[in-house]
Amino acid sequence: MSRESAIELHRYLKGKLSVEPKVDVIDRKDLSLIYTPGVGFVSQEIAKDKDSVYDYTWKSNTVAVVSDGSAVLGLGNVGPESALPVMEGKALLIKKFAGVNAVPICIRTKSWEDVVEIVYSIAPTFGLILLEDIKAPECFRVEEALSERLDIPFFHDDQHGTAIAVLAGLVNALKIVGKDKENLKVVISGAGAAGTAVTYLLLDFGFKYIVVCDSKGIINEDRSDLNEDKLKLAQITNPEKLSGGLETAMRGADIFIGLSAPGIVSKEMIRSMASNPIVFAMANPIPEIDYEEALSAGAKVVATGRSDYPNQINNLLVFPGLIKGLLKSRRKVDSEIKIKASKAIAEIVTEKELERGIIVPSPFNPFVVDRVAESVI
Amino acid sequence: MSRESAIELHRYLKGKLSVEPKVDVIDRKDLSLIYTPGVGFVSQEIAKDKDSVYDYTWKSNTVAVVSDGSAVLGLGNVGPESALPVMEGKALLIKKFAGVNAVPICIRTKSWEDVVEIVYSIAPTFGLILLEDIKAPECFRVEEALSERLDIPFFHDDQHGTAIAVLAGLVNALKIVGKDKENLKVVISGAGAAGTAVTYLLLDFGFKYIVVCDSKGIINEDRSDLNEDKLKLAQITNPEKLSGGLETAMRGADIFIGLSAPGIVSKEMIRSMASNPIVFAMANPIPEIDYEEALSAGAKVVATGRSDYPNQINNLLVFPGLIKGLLKSRRKVDSEIKIKASKAIAEIVTEKELERGIIVPSPFNPFVVDRVAESVI
Repeated sequence: MSRESAIELHRYLKGKLSVEPKVDVIDRKDLSLIYTPGVGFVSQEIAKDKDSVYDYTWKSNTVAVVSDGSAVLGLGNVGPESALPVMEGKALLIKKFAGVNAVPICIRTKSWEDVVEIVYSIAPTFGLILLEDIKAPECFRVEEALSERLDIPFFHDDQHGTAIAVLAGLVNALKIVGKDKENLKVVISGAGAAGTAVTYLLLDFGFKYIVVCDSKGIINEDRSDLNEDKLKLAQITNPEKLSGGLETAMRGADIFIGLSAPGIVSKEMIRSMASNPIVFAMANPIPEIDYEEALSAGAKVVATGRSDYPNQINNLLVFPGLIKGLLKSRRKVDSEIKIKASKAIAEIVTEKELERGIIVPSPFNPFVVDRVAESVI
Repeated sequence: MSRESAIELHRYLKGKLSVEPKVDVIDRKDLSLIYTPGVGFVSQEIAKDKDSVYDYTWKSNTVAVVSDGSAVLGLGNVGPESALPVMEGKALLIKKFAGVNAVPICIRTKSWEDVVEIVYSIAPTFGLILLEDIKAPECFRVEEALSERLDIPFFHDDQHGTAIAVLAGLVNALKIVGKDKENLKVVISGAGAAGTAVTYLLLDFGFKYIVVCDSKGIINEDRSDLNEDKLKLAQITNPEKLSGGLETAMRGADIFIGLSAPGIVSKEMIRSMASNPIVFAMANPIPEIDYEEALSAGAKVVATGRSDYPNQINNLLVFPGLIKGLLKSRRKVDSEIKIKASKAIAEIVTEKELERGIIVPSPFNPFVVDRVAESVI
């Protein structure tokens, strides 16, 4: 994959999606069935029973992939137009892997309140809203507001897709190192959308000792520079009230989870961890520490976000099955669902793979989507 | 077409559209091209030159079909869910006839200002916005506001699709009766979205004497019950300052255009018109006067909105080609475009057809879409 080949392909395709009729229209009789006057009877049925919109329209099998373009991949706040090829890609994967229609909706907004209003307004058309590439901390506000108002399932993939994939990997990594989650020290580098969601999910799963670091170091209650979300993190993590940098945090840690910046973890820092350390270095495209380096520094299990090394922690393991399951069950996403989905992914990895240090299945493994979907339903 | 068969088909299909990938993803290499990291390079290109979103994404060939469900077919304000099967049908026809992707977006809103905000916000994703089934007079406010703010073409089909189709039919009807537009009296029954837009287009085309009626009778400046839009109509129509009912208006008229209510025109009223009257009775599904009845009362040319009689004045003649032409040219809709599109449709009808009283082509005529599109470009 080169820059040129990606650009060339996109220029050739002019959009990676096509909206296709599921039925042909060849004469006036067809027209009268799928359009007026026939469709008027269908509208009347839905007017009588709003819920029947799931029976008569694409709502039951269609999601919107919504982004304001404020945190696109590693590129930052590049705007809705720049987000569109990414959302088209996501929508393509949703159809390919889950068989679900997905429509990219890239929106220009002035505030997180606008995101909420637009999602709320377009919701009648869709069965689920997938939020994408919305920056922190605004994404947390959007989520809170939608939890109150939205009558269909939704989730922010950068938060919860990532958290579920990380937990799936951790469940298997713990089997390999033979440690019990309750006695472990976990260091999470990155307190943005992903780092925050991972922290909450690991706490809900039963991890007791988590230390979170942002770019300024360990998050603790003494810091005066924390926004409300990081202050909340400080209150529920860091039981020993550590302060200092990532280096300090990692001393004696059993697990490192990086959702932060390239190259910020050294071999020394890996060596300072507890025995048989687990290292998830998921900064993209350049991890916190190189896969090979982490291994050579003594890491027992290593995972990254990259497809060119084993153990790619990839949201693609999560979102197709999660979407499929949520559409079927019409459930709202909660910790129980997230943990079940994580376990479902973890269980696909065989004993033999575990012996070879493999902790997550390939996203192309044909069992992943349906196992995740079933775990939700 | 029965009520049952339409409902059955919709229940079977569960949505008339499918969002399909234009390219397959079978391995990690494909994934890296259409999704991360490859798509990141495309995002960067668009961030550098926002207009290149037309080169790299579906924007150049994709429209949103937006409705708030406030005036769905003849059903009234039935809400966004009830509007969804209608918008799916419209989207299907847009793909089938114009080859353009169309996404139904049915929105729940509290005011016309909300409609404007949502359309403005989602516009980065689409090349054109088609507004549908939004009630008058709110639709006029939406249009005015979007004219100021929107950077892509848009049009309200209930207004302008209808106006163009009506004018196309009239152009040919005048050939049949051999009358000149400048000396004719036109009566328009209905001062909603369609009636208002038809009035403006006929004035711009060169008709001089138009009388508009709403359900309370002839619109004139003496009426105290008119909203601002109808007052404006009163000021630019009705040169003889007529007052009274539709019956009064129709006396001596050359052309009747009904966009109003079933059965409100009698044979007597047709007989009271000028010689060789033209009658477009387009209330749906039941016209202002029956096709056969209008003929037997002496109408020279009769058109309806129905597919089971000749001369169906159907927006399907207009919107696929108009959308195709506007997407290509990125032009905004104005009177010049509307008149050109009307003439393009009218010209497809052959001399022989005119002799038989046929004034509009079949919407299935394969020339219609491209002729309309070319007229716009």
